[in-house]
Parts: sequence; C-alpha cells; structure tokens
Amino acid sequence: MQIPIGLLGCGTVGAGVVSLVRRRADRVANMTGLRPVIQKILVRDLHKDRGVHFEHEQLTTSAEDILGDPDIQIVVETIGGIEPARTYILEALARKKHVVTANKDLIALHGPEILQTAAANGVSILFEASVGGAIPLLGPLQENLTANEVTDLKGIINGTTNFILSKMTEEGLDFDEALALAQELGYAEADPSSDVDGLDAARKLVILASIAFHTEVHLSDVRVEGIRHVTASDVRYADEAGYVIKLLADGRDRNGRLSLSVRPTLIPKSHPLAHVSDAFNALFVRGDAAGDLMFFGRGAGRMPTASAVVGDIIALVRNLKLGVVTSWPYALAGSRKPVVDFEDDLYKFYFRLMAADQPGVFAQVAHLFGELRVSMETVLQKRVAGGQAEIVIVSHEIPGKLAHEVATRLRSMPNIAVEAVMPVEPVNE
Amino acid sequence: MQIPIGLLGCGTVGAGVVSLVRRRADRVANMTGLRPVIQKILVRDLHKDRGVHFEHEQLTTSAEDILGDPDIQIVVETIGGIEPARTYILEALARKKHVVTANKDLIALHGPEILQTAAANGVSILFEASVGGAIPLLGPLQENLTANEVTDLKGIINGTTNFILSKMTEEGLDFDEALALAQELGYAEADPSSDVDGLDAARKLVILASIAFHTEVHLSDVRVEGIRHVTASDVRYADEAGYVIKLLADGRDRNGRLSLSVRPTLIPKSHPLAHVSDAFNALFVRGDAAGDLMFFGRGAGRMPTASAVVGDIIALVRNLKLGVVTSWPYALAGSRKPVVDFEDDLYKFYFRLMAADQPGVFAQVAHLFGELRVSMETVLQKRVAGGQAEIVIVSHEIPGKLAHEVATRLRSMPNIAVEAVMPVEPVNE
Repeated sequence: MQIPIGLLGCGTVGAGVVSLVRRRADRVANMTGLRPVIQKILVRDLHKDRGVHFEHEQLTTSAEDILGDPDIQIVVETIGGIEPARTYILEALARKKHVVTANKDLIALHGPEILQTAAANGVSILFEASVGGAIPLLGPLQENLTANEVTDLKGIINGTTNFILSKMTEEGLDFDEALALAQELGYAEADPSSDVDGLDAARKLVILASIAFHTEVHLSDVRVEGIRHVTASDVRYADEAGYVIKLLADGRDRNGRLSLSVRPTLIPKSHPLAHVSDAFNALFVRGDAAGDLMFFGRGAGRMPTASAVVGDIIALVRNLKLGVVTSWPYALAGSRKPVVDFEDDLYKFYFRLMAADQPGVFAQVAHLFGELRVSMETVLQKRVAGGQAEIVIVSHEIPGKLAHEVATRLRSMPNIAVEAVMPVEPVNE
Repeated sequence: MQIPIGLLGCGTVGAGVVSLVRRRADRVANMTGLRPVIQKILVRDLHKDRGVHFEHEQLTTSAEDILGDPDIQIVVETIGGIEPARTYILEALARKKHVVTANKDLIALHGPEILQTAAANGVSILFEASVGGAIPLLGPLQENLTANEVTDLKGIINGTTNFILSKMTEEGLDFDEALALAQELGYAEADPSSDVDGLDAARKLVILASIAFHTEVHLSDVRVEGIRHVTASDVRYADEAGYVIKLLADGRDRNGRLSLSVRPTLIPKSHPLAHVSDAFNALFVRGDAAGDLMFFGRGAGRMPTASAVVGDIIALVRNLKLGVVTSWPYALAGSRKPVVDFEDDLYKFYFRLMAADQPGVFAQVAHLFGELRVSMETVLQKRVAGGQAEIVIVSHEIPGKLAHEVATRLRSMPNIAVEAVMPVEPVNE
C-alpha cells in the first residue's frame, strides 16, 4: 500500500528528501508493507531546475492542493522561516495529517503551540533535522536516554561559526577574513548575523534543552553572545595556553533550575569537543546514569539534513503501520523550570586586556586580582604596536559573578581596556 | 497501574538496574500512566550484600518464581554468559513476556534464534546495553538512521584493550605492565583473553553489523586479531609517524558484500577516534546520506550499563501503553549477505621488522618494496640491543593482498623477522 506524502518547499533540503525517499522506498516497503511516495510538491516556480528529475510527483504552487488532499497523510515542511511555514503546519495538523519539519526557527519559537496542536489532533510532529543535521540527537534524548536525569548539554551546533573559528585557529585568519572565506565557500549567508551573533545556536539550544530537561524553554531564556569580537590574537593566546575557542551552547539543569547560554568558550585541547572542526557539529550530554556521551556528525547540507527528515518520515510510516502516534510529553506538561544565571558555578575565565605599555600597569592588574583573591593559572604579556601591551590572564576556578566583578573593576581603570572575557570549559574526566 | 518486572541476576549491573528503576519510576508513571516496579529478583545467594536496599522486591533462588509468574510482563536478564541465560530468555519469550538483556555473548551467538522466538510469540526483545554500555547505538542505527545505507562501522568497543593501549601510549608501558595495571584497577579480568584477544569486540561487532547492515552475521564471519603482540615500540613508532594504535572493530558493506574484522589499527591523530581514551567507547558510522557520524561514551560500568537497560525497560513500558511490539526486521528476513576479505581495498600498512644490523639488510628490504611497487610514506630505523636493527615502514596505500605478499616475502628472508603488520585507518575528511 502506498503512503502519499506532500512536500512543502523544494529547495536544497527538499530536493534531497525527494531523492532519498525514492532511494529507500523499497526498503521501507519490505520492512512495513507500506511504501512512502512523494505525491505533491509545493513550489514557487514550476519551471526551476532543482537537480532532481520529477517523475510522477505533481508540482503545485497552491498549498491547498496538499493540505486539502484527503489522501495525503504525511506533510513534510522544508520551506524554513516562520511564515507561511507555521500556518501550513498548523493547518496540516488540524486536518489530522502527520508532519515532519526541519525548521529550527519555527520549533524554537512556536514549539509548544505546534506540539500541542499535534497532540490535540492525535497526530505526530517530528523534527529531528531541526538540530544537528544528520546527527541523531532528539531521538536518543527522547528515547534511549530516558532513564537519565540529563544535567548538562554542551553543543557545537552552528556550522558557520565553527568553520570560521576553525579557519582562525588553523590558518591564523582574522574574523573578517574567515567570514569572507566562509561566505565565498557557501558556509555563511550574505547577511551572517543569525549565525555569527549566536542566534541560530540559541534556537537549537532551546529545542535540545526543552527535550533533554523536560520543560518548555523560550529563546529569551538563553544568554547569547556571538563571535564577532573574537580576534586572531584570542585564538593564538588560547592555543598557547592549551585551548581552542568554540561557540559553545551550554545548558545546565541543577535540581530543576536551568542555566542556558551560547557564547565563545575556551575548550581544553584534551576535551572531545576541541576536535570538532569545520562544518561538523557535536553535542556533549551528561546524564546521571550514563555519564558523559558525545554525538558527532554533519550539522547541515542537503543529504545530511535529508537523512534526518527521511528518518522521521520512515518513523511516521511505522507509526501508521502500528497505529500509534509519537508524543512529546514535555510540551503537554506545560512545565516551566526556572531559568537563572548560575553565578556561583566555578569556572576558569580568560581575560584579554589592552594596557598602556608603561611601568606599573601590570602591577595594577596583578594587585586587583590579588585583592579579589582571584589566582592566575596563565599570564601572557606581549607588546603590540602603538605603545600598547596586550595582557592575557587565565584565572583559576572562580564563580561567574566574581569574573564579572573583575571585569567591571578592570574597566574602571584608566589605562586598561578589557577586550575579551570568556569562560573556560573544564577538562572532561 | 503497576508494571511488575522480574530481574534475572543481581550483580553489578543488576543492582544498578534496581536502583535506577526506583529513581525513574515516578517520571515513567507521569509520562505513561504505568509504573515500572522490580517485583522479583533471581539470585544465587539470598543473603549477599549488593549495595542496594531491597524493600518490597522479593529475592528468590528459583527462576520459575519469575518465569512462571503470570503478573510479570517484563523480564530483565543481567546474568551474562550463555547458560542458563539463554534457556531463561527463550522460556520467558515463549511465555509471552517481553525481555531486556545486556548479554552481548548471548545475542552475538544466538541472536537469530532469540529474535525469531520473540517475533513468533509477539513480544519484544531489547538489548541496547549489549554494545557500547550507555551509548545509544542500536536505537539510532535501527530508528534514526534508517534512511541510510550504512557502508562503514568503525568501533572502539572494548574498554579493557582501549585502557591498556591508552596506558601504553601515555605512559610508555609494555603490554604486560599495562595489562597488570588494568587488572589491578578492575578494568581487566584475571583471565583477560576474551578482551585482549579481540573476542569481546568481535561479538559486539556481530551485533552492530547485523543491525546496521540488515543481515544475519555470525562470529565466524569476523577476522579477529588481539593486541598481545603490540609492543611499546610499536606504540612509540606509531606516535612518531602521527598515529595512535587502537583495537578497531571494522565492518564494511560494499553493495551487499561484507568485510568484518577486529584488529590493532593505526589511527591518524586527526581522526576523531584517536581521542577515545581509557575506558571510553566510540562508534564511527558512515551512511550514504548522513555522511560521517560518531557516538562516544562510557562502554561499561554499573550505572552506564544500567542506563541502557532501564532505557530499554522504559521503551517496553511505552510499548505496553501503546499496545505495540518492537521488531528487528533483519533477523526475520533470514538474509545472509556474503562475507569476504576486501583484499583489493586500499590501505596504508605499518610493518615493523627486526633485522641483523649489518650492511645490505636495509637495501634488501628496500629492494623488495621496490620490486613489488610498494612505495614508502615513512621509514624509521633504530639500532636495538644485540646487534639487531628495528625497521619501521609505513607504506602508501596498497591493496590488502599486496600487504600480505610483502609480509610473506619478508618472512622468507634469512636475516629478517616480521614483528608486526597493521593497517592504517585513512584520515577522516
């Protein structure tokens, strides 16, 4: 028996979905007796070349041709962005169709509404492709790791910034040069702000945290800092001190209180996350029973994303076979764990200062650290052009609030400019 | 409503399962309305201290108290080994009970029989804990990655050998010293042969390959070589040439033909698997759509293993709620993909030779490599005690059969002893 699927959008990912569904239809039919078939595809331009030969699939410019077709039981959304994707998905769910989406923006911003609509209509919504591309993340968190209280998520979940930081590390490029290279190679958009300012990673963290921590999470819960201010010299100093700078999405659950942030972070070279380079993504998970786990793979691209979307389609076909629906209990509980800054958590901190290169300035800095009882693990001082000295200090472990106080006090000194303050991820044991 | 569970065996893992089921029972009850409760536990000694306080659970020395109890719907086996575990599991399945097991030996050797018995009785058998401890592997391979044709599995899936090789690498220990240390710390058994001779890894590879490649796999299909002959100097030479030696479980599917091996392998330091140290496990997976993925975490230990067992228990509770059964299509298809040595696959090879330290010996070796058209990437020669020279050669990529020919020809030379031949894993791109 055929399972007709409607596809909304046929860009890079959509075309990958079309070809991958065709490639695996026989296997799914052998496994389940049901054959998934992409029956109709919503496009804006009927005549554009999409690198896929359309055989029996019918292209249409009218969403109603799909949403209003009673034969179509599964709708796959690969349009991206909020509207019209949100309206289409809510409409599909209201008409009792199961939905697969790769749309992280939509799930991050409207996840609870969408999940509740699915539940109210007794249908499934799956979105594995919305975070981490091909890497199975939501599945394992939701299925295999349910015996765990997940306490920590640490993710490198934005390929663009990881590519930029990798090039800065490997080739000594400055941020602007690395960004230009990323744009040239298609790893960054013409307007890169959503990636480099950390928003994309924050949206993915919202999705991961809501599932791992069993609670509703909002974008405003995440403290976000991008990588625009990270310089080639930060990267070099970090390297000398034994670290790699990564844009780290960090979620922690401490007895039901959450802390969520996305910010440039120094990762010790011995940590598994330090070796996640270029456009690869990785998620580090700590569970109270499982201990430390890491999931690694391609976070974007036509076929890696299609891999996750079609994995979800196959799960829905199995659901149809079994007569069951996938539920996401967290969204229905309506639970909202409190979100706080963990200002008492102990971390090492990296400080980079620019100071007038004159006697006594370093003593001033050292005196402040002594007064606040912040001891230093690494100190580097170099002369730079224009009578300026660059001072880099990596502290021993201190509470976050003390790091803020150090920075505030340093900023009040007349001869000192605070160029960067970044947390240092502990060595994984 | 309560779901009574019978536990067979209460050693390290079993006691972890008891405490973890208690810890998560509320959550599962909130999610599903069903509360898992360990009701009866089969032990050999009713009075042994197991580090767990038994409240309402009834200890028994008779398996029939569990297998014959009509209230018990789920049976969890943590005895290990083949018998009596096999008989108990087949009996439980025959009496329509769902089964969870952590028993890799049993699934590797009797998987098809057990899976077919489960299917014939309309019940589920789950065994996530049998490979990779806490790391979700079978779940993702069976669920999230179904849109892929998996072509490659590369696993560091034996913690004992990885601990030994890590200590040899980090501390320059010899095999015997590292083994003694592993035994002292409880990472190796008094009789370590199943681990160090590669059998444990081979059994896990049988399970992984059967699920990833959708076919029945037998232990005799795996070419197995352990790590006893790996020396401190191999580890040192590999390090100098940019590699780390790991016991690698390697499974490949090339258009339906399989190659399966477990053997010491040189891994480039830039490969994600090179950083999997000590008792950690990792599985590298290549899918035709997903590209390269890696799963990393704790491969053994009380709570990591219990994490996977209880994850499976929770999956069964959900199954009961939904009225469905988990099926493993490969075992029922009865398919047997042909298994061959991929003698034409191109790999770099590492050769370590011991030669009489006299003029002309190295020229003899170099001449042979030239004659067989095997070019050398790295050559190291060192004088050792007793008028002997140690020669290490890393070849450029050659077919496996050519590496065998090189070794055979070298062995026929009067002044040369071939001490080690190991494949080199390609750099991951």
